[in-house]
Amino acid sequence: MTETPVTFDLIAKAAETWRERIGPSESMEAVSNIMRVQQILQAAVDESLRQHGLTFARYEALVLLSFSSRDSLPMRLMGERLQLHPTSITNIVDRLEADGLAQRLPHPTDRRTTLVTLTATGRKRLTEATQSVLKTDFGFVGLEPGELSQLSVLLTKLRKAAGDF
Amino acid sequence: MTETPVTFDLIAKAAETWRERIGPSESMEAVSNIMRVQQILQAAVDESLRQHGLTFARYEALVLLSFSSRDSLPMRLMGERLQLHPTSITNIVDRLEADGLAQRLPHPTDRRTTLVTLTATGRKRLTEATQSVLKTDFGFVGLEPGELSQLSVLLTKLRKAAGDF
Repeated sequence: MTETPVTFDLIAKAAETWRERIGPSESMEAVSNIMRVQQILQAAVDESLRQHGLTFARYEALVLLSFSSRDSLPMRLMGERLQLHPTSITNIVDRLEADGLAQRLPHPTDRRTTLVTLTATGRKRLTEATQSVLKTDFGFVGLEPGELSQLSVLLTKLRKAAGDF
Repeated sequence: MTETPVTFDLIAKAAETWRERIGPSESMEAVSNIMRVQQILQAAVDESLRQHGLTFARYEALVLLSFSSRDSLPMRLMGERLQLHPTSITNIVDRLEADGLAQRLPHPTDRRTTLVTLTATGRKRLTEATQSVLKTDFGFVGLEPGELSQLSVLLTKLRKAAGDF
């Protein structure tokens, strides 16, 4: 299958048509850009992590554990911090445990709480995976560090207004 | 289940720890922000569209058709423009067709090509759905139009470097 060569930017072109037919296009253009960039970065990070047997979601869970005191966190708290549904975090921990990267432990004082802790293998895998994502800079290309910071400032403003704090 | 109150920004906090333990955090912070904002916007748009029986993906397909000459496009081209796998675009068109919003037609001159065309019902549904997404501004909150444009400039620069043109 040959691809029709695209000689214009699809999103900019759609925004132009939106402006002509519907109205202001800033939001439509921004949402399209965010959706597309998320796909680009997700693909790049998943590609970097594949060789380590990790997905972005599992990598984030390992980072979270490694950033916690004593390399462990209550499972419920992991879900909250990663903003995931309880079933998603359960699946992630199941897989990390099956791969020997994390371990479920009973909480020493609260029977209702399950702790998840990073194993030595998990820590090693995390270090190697971090080297790989850093090598491709999480998929970022074409932007200076200052522009990445600008992006974060704008997106943090949005998250704050949406109730992320 | 009561949520542990979060009184700090999870992403800013993680970036701080990353900086202390690993190194420069601009990319890590930006990728986290983009992933999270994508979730926020996707949820907002899906919520606006649910009452119209549409998902964001099917809504985008209707917009694309409506922006095309004669409200129709070869199915293969739809996949390219929406940057979707052939199976995804097939599923989307199947569902639009089942709902009477689009129709597959044979191409008048090229037997190997399937055209997809917007129906009158599809056009009406699209107009109503657009009113709904505009009402919530695609989920955008807290940003001025100028800031949305800034976002698009930065993200377009990234897309261009990643080969999106």
